Amino acid sequence: MITFIGLGLWDEKSMSLEAIEEAKGCDKLYAEFYTSKLFGTTAKKLEEIFGKPIEVLPREEVESGKNILEDAKGKKVGFLVAGDAMTATTHVDILLEAKKLGIETKIVHGSSIYTAAAGLAGLQIYKFGRATSLTFPQEGFLPDSPYNVISENLRGGMHTLVFLDIQPPKYMTANEGMQVLLDIEKKRKEDIFSQDTKIAVVARAGSDKPLVKFGKVKDLLQLDFGEPLHVMIVPGRLHFKEEEALQQWK
Amino acid sequence: MITFIGLGLWDEKSMSLEAIEEAKGCDKLYAEFYTSKLFGTTAKKLEEIFGKPIEVLPREEVESGKNILEDAKGKKVGFLVAGDAMTATTHVDILLEAKKLGIETKIVHGSSIYTAAAGLAGLQIYKFGRATSLTFPQEGFLPDSPYNVISENLRGGMHTLVFLDIQPPKYMTANEGMQVLLDIEKKRKEDIFSQDTKIAVVARAGSDKPLVKFGKVKDLLQLDFGEPLHVMIVPGRLHFKEEEALQQWK
Repeated sequence: MITFIGLGLWDEKSMSLEAIEEAKGCDKLYAEFYTSKLFGTTAKKLEEIFGKPIEVLPREEVESGKNILEDAKGKKVGFLVAGDAMTATTHVDILLEAKKLGIETKIVHGSSIYTAAAGLAGLQIYKFGRATSLTFPQEGFLPDSPYNVISENLRGGMHTLVFLDIQPPKYMTANEGMQVLLDIEKKRKEDIFSQDTKIAVVARAGSDKPLVKFGKVKDLLQLDFGEPLHVMIVPGRLHFKEEEALQQWK
Repeated sequence: MITFIGLGLWDEKSMSLEAIEEAKGCDKLYAEFYTSKLFGTTAKKLEEIFGKPIEVLPREEVESGKNILEDAKGKKVGFLVAGDAMTATTHVDILLEAKKLGIETKIVHGSSIYTAAAGLAGLQIYKFGRATSLTFPQEGFLPDSPYNVISENLRGGMHTLVFLDIQPPKYMTANEGMQVLLDIEKKRKEDIFSQDTKIAVVARAGSDKPLVKFGKVKDLLQLDFGEPLHVMIVPGRLHFKEEEALQQWK
């Protein structure tokens, strides 16, 4: 059996009682912290709470899913992930592979940046279009897809949640993210994301001291948002209550 | 001070350690269960865990926010809500009102149907467009907006999460929801939601026995999805992995 356990957003206190109970009841615990990560705690602290070791898997091993699936044939395996479970494609891949092998599966949900970022900023979650992710430019290559997603969402008046690349130990800052979008703008010139675009930055969601800032890109670029993780929100058409909410963060 | 506490999806075990700690530390606890509700537990059970009474507020009182704000001037007030905090507009209204009055605010996040429904179905969360809500028809009046949202999302290949009306003690079933959309289709005739449209139904997300079903509307209409809450997903363009995931639930 495999239980996919969402640990929530920030530290060990973000975990639900169910997550803790399930993890304690497993024979073997795996974790992956490369699609997301809890910045307020460590695998060691989680091991103390669960009373058993956690094997943190590198990307290749999660993608093959081999050890997890092998163990799950005879044992109760827990697969720990930050945020809600199943938000990363590879988690679904493992689940489907398990089903094929006749292995029972279960999902334990955790709090997620998808709703947390909107809530912290004070924006209405139902007004968000699809989310997008920025990656660190590789040899100058900048994929346009995030720009396209923002553009399509704006056309429908929708907000866009923009995830920033996670390549441990490198975590893209909102400043780097803004620069990536400005660079795409330079190429595309459709005035989707300029120095004057107003956006929101949310840092350390789920922690005791989350930071939200709202303003023009040129002003936000000067700020230091502190420790990761950061996300950005490019707002679409704003309801006056949303406008009022964002004004708090100037 | 007001702490907005998201309780998560289903029962007392859905709560995070932080939610419990914060609720225990409050002088006064309010709750609202009309925008969403925990079906696996009761206010009484939560009171036992927190060791103090919870005043469950009717819609009018939440909308005015009066008692909460009055109490929060001198006391530590906790406002308990199902799912993640701040997903309902009224919660943001109270927060903004509190800020105006100089009252400190804090948000404690919980697991939410937004990510849980996608995860349970095996669909990729980043492929969801904006969500929509169906309401019980009143005197034959059927607002078209949910149909428009689904239509726009489909045009962009995106999935749509469809919430179903909550009017305690009435909770719209997926069957009723499908009928509402079929009735709008009859009027609009744009072939957005027909008997042959394939959709997914997710019931009791966050419980030990969530149910997911995927199939044509005409077949799903014959099924009993059991106790609330139900949500529906109208899928857009499917990645082959998503197709594979949905095939599990036929």
